[in-house]
Amino acid sequence: MRHSRRDFIQTLSAPLLAMPFLAMSEKHQKYEGPILRVAIMGLGNYGTRVAEAMKSCKKAKLVGVISGTPSKIKSWQAKYQIPEKNCYNYQDFDKIRDNPDIDAVYVITPNALHRDQVIRVAKAGKHVICEKPMSVNAADAQQMVDACKRAKVKLLVGYRMHFEPKTLEIIRMRKAGEFGKVLFFQGLSGFQIGDPTQWRLKKELSGGGAMMDIGIYSVNGSRYMIGEDPVWVTAQEVKTNKEKFREGIDETITFQLGFPGGAVASCLSTYTMNNLDRFFLNGEKGYAEMQPSTGYGPILGHTHKGELVYPHVAHQTFQMDEMAGIILEGKEPIVPVDGGEGLKDMKIIDAIYKAVQTGKKESVYL
Amino acid sequence: MRHSRRDFIQTLSAPLLAMPFLAMSEKHQKYEGPILRVAIMGLGNYGTRVAEAMKSCKKAKLVGVISGTPSKIKSWQAKYQIPEKNCYNYQDFDKIRDNPDIDAVYVITPNALHRDQVIRVAKAGKHVICEKPMSVNAADAQQMVDACKRAKVKLLVGYRMHFEPKTLEIIRMRKAGEFGKVLFFQGLSGFQIGDPTQWRLKKELSGGGAMMDIGIYSVNGSRYMIGEDPVWVTAQEVKTNKEKFREGIDETITFQLGFPGGAVASCLSTYTMNNLDRFFLNGEKGYAEMQPSTGYGPILGHTHKGELVYPHVAHQTFQMDEMAGIILEGKEPIVPVDGGEGLKDMKIIDAIYKAVQTGKKESVYL
Repeated sequence: MRHSRRDFIQTLSAPLLAMPFLAMSEKHQKYEGPILRVAIMGLGNYGTRVAEAMKSCKKAKLVGVISGTPSKIKSWQAKYQIPEKNCYNYQDFDKIRDNPDIDAVYVITPNALHRDQVIRVAKAGKHVICEKPMSVNAADAQQMVDACKRAKVKLLVGYRMHFEPKTLEIIRMRKAGEFGKVLFFQGLSGFQIGDPTQWRLKKELSGGGAMMDIGIYSVNGSRYMIGEDPVWVTAQEVKTNKEKFREGIDETITFQLGFPGGAVASCLSTYTMNNLDRFFLNGEKGYAEMQPSTGYGPILGHTHKGELVYPHVAHQTFQMDEMAGIILEGKEPIVPVDGGEGLKDMKIIDAIYKAVQTGKKESVYL
Repeated sequence: MRHSRRDFIQTLSAPLLAMPFLAMSEKHQKYEGPILRVAIMGLGNYGTRVAEAMKSCKKAKLVGVISGTPSKIKSWQAKYQIPEKNCYNYQDFDKIRDNPDIDAVYVITPNALHRDQVIRVAKAGKHVICEKPMSVNAADAQQMVDACKRAKVKLLVGYRMHFEPKTLEIIRMRKAGEFGKVLFFQGLSGFQIGDPTQWRLKKELSGGGAMMDIGIYSVNGSRYMIGEDPVWVTAQEVKTNKEKFREGIDETITFQLGFPGGAVASCLSTYTMNNLDRFFLNGEKGYAEMQPSTGYGPILGHTHKGELVYPHVAHQTFQMDEMAGIILEGKEPIVPVDGGEGLKDMKIIDAIYKAVQTGKKESVYL
């Protein structure tokens, strides 16, 4: 059995319940639609994970690299059959404008570099996928959104969870009213960070500590789980190790978000507790619980109706295929993953940092 | 096999692991030690629950009642074989001073009445067990502590959990360092309150809303789980139903407590979400989780080492036997349950309410 492109798109729009199973049964079918040709900027750990995951993509393909390390470029060329003409460094990547064989660049570099790099990619006329956090503050994120709009390119943020089937099933249930009025969300996001010399612990590269890196999952999660945007935040910081976590690098922050419908979110962001990856959504009629909720491995979850039994999908594979659909086919994702959404999270994080400083309830305008 | 009183006391001091099993095997053995003769003040739902549970006590016995409703007194007399001379009303119960057959009074009345009733019982020279919350604010609690001290009677607060075997096993593990440095506690305490006309929703009787009634479990739990007293609190209130939850009756409050060792507690107190009864303690080396954590039924819990497998004990039965040991034998409980401990919780709750008003971090001095 073969699908026309139209059939294929319709298949992908089929009810969520069927999605992962269809994806599996389609594995051995030939895909004939358009392919998103991607260059990865930043060949570190996460870049490598994305490259490996993309081997299984049907609609996206790794075709180029941008790196400051020639030896890395060489090894990636060999590993992923990347032609010399699709290799760039941080000085010359504006020339990607003249390369018709690259559609989009996935920026996977330290947070503080995202703004300028995304803007340069946009100016070069290529679509941009930017790893989270989108930037180090809302002002930068706004510039990025504006630049991509001006350049008429798409800007997407690498939030994997918006494509994860168990997450999407909870969102479907919430929209269908199966939890009743949603009243509470709890997100616990944390891990024990290792090497104290890594860029994530340098303010000038990371823009912040655990909140930028892992707490952002609870920030973003509170919005897609509750289905609203918060109107106020409060936050409290605790620091037990001032040598490892210096000025501007948050170790542990508890934060609360108030939503217009009366729901409240109570969250934890930390670099000192391992394997903290829990979401809990509570409504008047039911609840959902996920643990792990945002990790790279299988997401496990249950609701008042029972266990969520969708098979695991490799998040990065799924994300890149779905983003190809968004960029090339104008597909509308169930939860938005564009720059505007990333900007909202940066505004919330700005407000959380401000609330830590002022000790007061800070309004958020999204 | 029979135990002397001394042997029996030593048996009860045996390692916790063996405790519930011993209690079961001793069920059919004759107890020969002293018996705490208790009068219950307030014959409502919870008073009835305590009375029923006391039927299984070995060291405590219901012998008297204090009530404003003559028909209730009559039915309790019949049900529990209570002699006329051990029955009092709210006007004449000071005469209990002249009754040599009552050792202690368990005050189970609306919160705002506790202060005066406890002080009157103390002045009558009887030991007092006071249901939680001990009072409606710290100033009242302090007066109660002072009055009992002056009268040289014991004052205990009816926190059941301090005697619950799974709870105590987690406390033992924490003291033994099995969780490593304790960094985080989460307590979610709530239920959907029914009848809008009940005394719990009247400020003049309850002194407050969900926080006084159910949130206090997370307040108290944060202290016995972490093993420290907090030094600051922050709190945020959300009210979705201003008719049911009037001025001074809190519906939903999220609150955070900071501890001197660097741990932070993030808690929820609510009257709008059902079956919210979860504790989570997280340390550098391990964790403990309980759900339910404070309900009347079986407590369920596990740690990084596995499930906690102690058999269920009827909390109120266990509490009353253990309190008899504290009052009559000077037994030291693993976690203090005296008026001073109740006072600490009232100071924290005062600070939580203040933090809701000021929107600021409030210091706590315990």
